Amino acid sequence: MSRPSEDEIIQRYFAPLAGPAALGLLDDAAAFAPPPGDLVVTKDMLCAGVHFFADDPPGAIARKALRVNLSDLAAKGAAPLGFLLGLALPDDWTPDWLAAFAAGLAEDAAVYQCPLFGGDTVKSPGALTLSITALGSVPKGTRLIRANAAANDFLYLSGTIGDAALGLLLRGLPVPVWSHGLGAESQVFLRERYLLPQPRLGLRAALLGCADAAMDISDGLAGDLAKMLQASGLTAQIAVADLPLSAAAREALAQEPDLIETLLSGGDDYEILAAVAPGKAAAFEQAAGAAGIPVRRIGRAQAGADPAVFRAADGRPLFLKSFSYRHF
Amino acid sequence: MSRPSEDEIIQRYFAPLAGPAALGLLDDAAAFAPPPGDLVVTKDMLCAGVHFFADDPPGAIARKALRVNLSDLAAKGAAPLGFLLGLALPDDWTPDWLAAFAAGLAEDAAVYQCPLFGGDTVKSPGALTLSITALGSVPKGTRLIRANAAANDFLYLSGTIGDAALGLLLRGLPVPVWSHGLGAESQVFLRERYLLPQPRLGLRAALLGCADAAMDISDGLAGDLAKMLQASGLTAQIAVADLPLSAAAREALAQEPDLIETLLSGGDDYEILAAVAPGKAAAFEQAAGAAGIPVRRIGRAQAGADPAVFRAADGRPLFLKSFSYRHF
Repeated sequence: MSRPSEDEIIQRYFAPLAGPAALGLLDDAAAFAPPPGDLVVTKDMLCAGVHFFADDPPGAIARKALRVNLSDLAAKGAAPLGFLLGLALPDDWTPDWLAAFAAGLAEDAAVYQCPLFGGDTVKSPGALTLSITALGSVPKGTRLIRANAAANDFLYLSGTIGDAALGLLLRGLPVPVWSHGLGAESQVFLRERYLLPQPRLGLRAALLGCADAAMDISDGLAGDLAKMLQASGLTAQIAVADLPLSAAAREALAQEPDLIETLLSGGDDYEILAAVAPGKAAAFEQAAGAAGIPVRRIGRAQAGADPAVFRAADGRPLFLKSFSYRHF
Repeated sequence: MSRPSEDEIIQRYFAPLAGPAALGLLDDAAAFAPPPGDLVVTKDMLCAGVHFFADDPPGAIARKALRVNLSDLAAKGAAPLGFLLGLALPDDWTPDWLAAFAAGLAEDAAVYQCPLFGGDTVKSPGALTLSITALGSVPKGTRLIRANAAANDFLYLSGTIGDAALGLLLRGLPVPVWSHGLGAESQVFLRERYLLPQPRLGLRAALLGCADAAMDISDGLAGDLAKMLQASGLTAQIAVADLPLSAAAREALAQEPDLIETLLSGGDDYEILAAVAPGKAAAFEQAAGAAGIPVRRIGRAQAGADPAVFRAADGRPLFLKSFSYRHF
């Protein structure tokens, strides 16, 4: 099989994604004049068999890798400037696979106006491994952090949570019993939510204008909420009934009530958790609505050092076996 | 074996390396006000078994990963601002390994004044894989590129070339025959040159003040020189006798003359190739000397589209089987 060299890979597949800063990816490094304000930088690493399935569509793998980084930028109120791609290809890669990977990446780079600045393509002795570094920009001093939530702030979640975790379970074998009672459309929806997160960059104006603190939910709501509250020296009581669940997640939950654990502690949501002062809540909701992004008030931050408590419909506290996806 | 969680890893091993922009690595992303001028960004990916040996000292692995990125910044005339680390750890990692890795990284982050901005630590289903993204800064519009060499420019090389490629051969089995005639000190020197590149950040003033074009030599002098000349629409004749070789490399070459191929096309030099106009050559040499970095004039760029030719001591052209390290 004839496969292109590294230089050919760069020119054929990746140069079309490059912005002017990258000089057609022909140099060692990209250079650009950053916009006025602060630079926001983030990096995520994804491995086949851990963060995605090796046989996922290559375009979806590429888009997920970019989107999880864009989700970090979104949570900080940053507008994307561009990204760098590290790609370690296993021995059995094919030009077709790489073409589809690059096409998916090109699509999202265009949609999110986030050009490729550069990167590195190497041979992996093991599984496909991807690393993306994304750069973004915020007006000086406005970058949101997770540790700045205040007592009495309303806690908001964008979109719906738990879908991706259910989608991941649907990929497992044996097929979970509860999936037998789940409509085909719901199954597709949940699988899609795992495959392709939606970075909430549209929330930028709402967050920058109104939020005290924000983060993206990537390792499970329970654990990530605990991180924000702990970092801010606060606690909260969350009624499970107030959580935003998709129709598909509700359908699954009706089949198997124990899935509440998965919904609360599963990863890969890539929704935004924001803490908003009561006086700015109306403006926050309005700005999010104007951006077409649903946000739901899930509770209120309170003074106190206890961990957040989730309460079932009958008011009893829920004891979770795990708070979040454990990377190790 | 009890191993720390991802959060504990971050706090115990990596937070001490973080600059103020990173908020103690407790947030999704770092943010900072970049200095005036242009931002330079670069990213390299390294896999165990491909770019280093899995049993190399962990501190050396970390330092090499950072240094190859710093070498890219050096070649562009950029001063380091900070870096992001992606780390995919194989199943059998130990806290001791990680502590030594972080200690090596901390040492170089301090030496090169390049704090950690953030990153991601994940589980690798295969080999240890590392990705570092480095950010640097140059005065506006001064970033050096490789495509800007001009006819008649002198071509300069920093340091010596081929040492790392010989050092890599010394790591192979069976032990190469020529190594039997090589002194112990030379062997250590060559191995060390493979293990730990020296990013030529000290050349910054010389490059920014005097060079038309620059790049770092990472995939072999022959191939990388060809890239610069081709990008600039030029050619060159290089007398092998003019190349800067270390005493150890000369010793090896005396044992085995065919090693000239390895010296010219082996990778991992991380020296700087610069094209300097004749009128600035004296100033370039002086500035490099002031920085304590040896530079050697290896030839002159000429008009013409032919590939560069290396000539042996008797003036005959050298035909290389390969021009550079092939990543695929």
